[in-house]
Amino acid sequence: MNTINRQIRLAARPQGLPKDSDWSHTTGPVGDAPDGGVLVKVLYLSLDPAMRGWMNEGRSYIPPVGIGEVMRAGGVGRVIASRHAGFAVGDMVSGAFGVQEYCAIAPAAIKPVGLVKIDTRAGTLPQWLNALGMPGMTAYFGLLETGQPKAGETVVVSGAAGAVGQTVGQVAKIKGCRVVGIAGGRDKCEFVVRELGFDACIDYKGGSVRDGLKEHCPQGVDVYFDNVGGEILDTVLTRINRRARIVICGAISQYNNTTPVKGPSNYLSLLVNRARMEGIVVFDWADRYGEAVQNIAAWMRAGKFKSREDVVEGLERFPEALAMLFSGANFGKLVLKVASE
Amino acid sequence: MNTINRQIRLAARPQGLPKDSDWSHTTGPVGDAPDGGVLVKVLYLSLDPAMRGWMNEGRSYIPPVGIGEVMRAGGVGRVIASRHAGFAVGDMVSGAFGVQEYCAIAPAAIKPVGLVKIDTRAGTLPQWLNALGMPGMTAYFGLLETGQPKAGETVVVSGAAGAVGQTVGQVAKIKGCRVVGIAGGRDKCEFVVRELGFDACIDYKGGSVRDGLKEHCPQGVDVYFDNVGGEILDTVLTRINRRARIVICGAISQYNNTTPVKGPSNYLSLLVNRARMEGIVVFDWADRYGEAVQNIAAWMRAGKFKSREDVVEGLERFPEALAMLFSGANFGKLVLKVASE
Repeated sequence: MNTINRQIRLAARPQGLPKDSDWSHTTGPVGDAPDGGVLVKVLYLSLDPAMRGWMNEGRSYIPPVGIGEVMRAGGVGRVIASRHAGFAVGDMVSGAFGVQEYCAIAPAAIKPVGLVKIDTRAGTLPQWLNALGMPGMTAYFGLLETGQPKAGETVVVSGAAGAVGQTVGQVAKIKGCRVVGIAGGRDKCEFVVRELGFDACIDYKGGSVRDGLKEHCPQGVDVYFDNVGGEILDTVLTRINRRARIVICGAISQYNNTTPVKGPSNYLSLLVNRARMEGIVVFDWADRYGEAVQNIAAWMRAGKFKSREDVVEGLERFPEALAMLFSGANFGKLVLKVASE
Repeated sequence: MNTINRQIRLAARPQGLPKDSDWSHTTGPVGDAPDGGVLVKVLYLSLDPAMRGWMNEGRSYIPPVGIGEVMRAGGVGRVIASRHAGFAVGDMVSGAFGVQEYCAIAPAAIKPVGLVKIDTRAGTLPQWLNALGMPGMTAYFGLLETGQPKAGETVVVSGAAGAVGQTVGQVAKIKGCRVVGIAGGRDKCEFVVRELGFDACIDYKGGSVRDGLKEHCPQGVDVYFDNVGGEILDTVLTRINRRARIVICGAISQYNNTTPVKGPSNYLSLLVNRARMEGIVVFDWADRYGEAVQNIAAWMRAGKFKSREDVVEGLERFPEALAMLFSGANFGKLVLKVASE
């Protein structure tokens, strides 16, 4: 294709919060679908806290993005050229397209879950990056498989208005739990209670998390789904019940540290309470995503489940949008709109 | 009985390491067996890191020792008077006798596991405070139930020459694991390798734990049984495998802190590795102690399992002996000999 592909590449490994000079904006030719592959026009990209980790050197659950490489990002888009029997022009697909306008996908990258057709009757494209996408899968399996909530138990989730938190809380409500969110700001707290049906939400910017937990979790905390780490994790540890399960999904408060991560000082509460803290990575459930999508889509159709996205428009605004995640400026799952369908 | 009972009581809540003025040495009459109860002559007392926690105010898995109360301690002794049908004069028993020479036990304190007859054919009295007592039970169930080691996996245990560590390592060897200890000093390291059959032992006082783990755990760490917390826990976290299990049994490095406990900075390794950290309290397996005693006694008889105790003699030396635990001066399970049989 005789078109220009704008791309954003990692120019340097950030110290602390990523800054403009950590990125380079480049252009290149779009080209054609590779032999046996497809060419995708990117429509929306997902902005996720985990991206910050991918920018660091060192061993993790996936290799870091190399300096000079297009920044890794999940997205949804439309197939505009195909040399693969399984995909036709016009198919809506999700995959790890990267921060660019077009993505050529070689056959090796298609299997087994590299490129997935999505059904826009089940949800909008942004929802396919939220409740029906990675954050939703993370929340669904992390809560149900690792958190093991039982009806009547109290589930606390931090980052409650964020992509993962929304789904954690709503699934926990559907499973009959008392659900208390932790979020930054009154608007977010009101949203998760009024719109998403949480039982309560603690505004960590507006008051004491400790007091909020005392008030809203009179029976203690049975499951804590942690997206933030830091002081909030430490405070929740003082309120857990016997045999509590703490799901370590992320630690957004620590991702831009230039000093060592703050470990949870109160981790000995695990001992006193015979409790468990366990880390999760969503890819481990890749062969079961279909089950979660089906359930969440059904709950959405039945009006039991809502999905809120915060859409920033324009590929070039990627660095600015990413920073919103770490200041908490986004309200709902943050997505970058790259192009109209 | 017309005899004097010497007792050691908690006089003040210690700041940091307990000091002499935190104790009071008192004497009182021994008295008789209470109605429906028994009178025990204390022979050996167990000295355990957990004691330090019992001296602090605040919520824990058991209430703190009150100021002015006889210090809580487990022990073994001989029934010297009985008004209870289940116990006869001369029976050897174990129970929470406290730091004193004689203990009168009311019927309410006998059931269900407050006073247990012990069989001195299965092990010596000090062994009944070690491998056949609380440390052995803690090690046996914490390792097997919470650690879930599989044959061929690598198990690391800190405090390896101590009461719990000895049993953890030997049981893990019996289960077919590679076992690497961490202990302070060459003598202790040599002991666990030569006498107890560990595959290797890292001397944290003599070198780098990180280097030792690299050398002795070439396949990474599948189970870490942590008795010490602090820097060692943090270092092991950098070497764990996927789905590793970290058993939080204690944190002796942190018990005398006057500053906040050092939380594990590397806890996000749990996330990357989908690993689990879980706290244990031995009392949860109280109804299964018999099973563990039977297995450990059989292994001892078969020459597959050794038990090493470090005996300090004299009730009045309790404060000095307790301090040995925290400096690591003891070599093997530390017990206080209060009287000859």
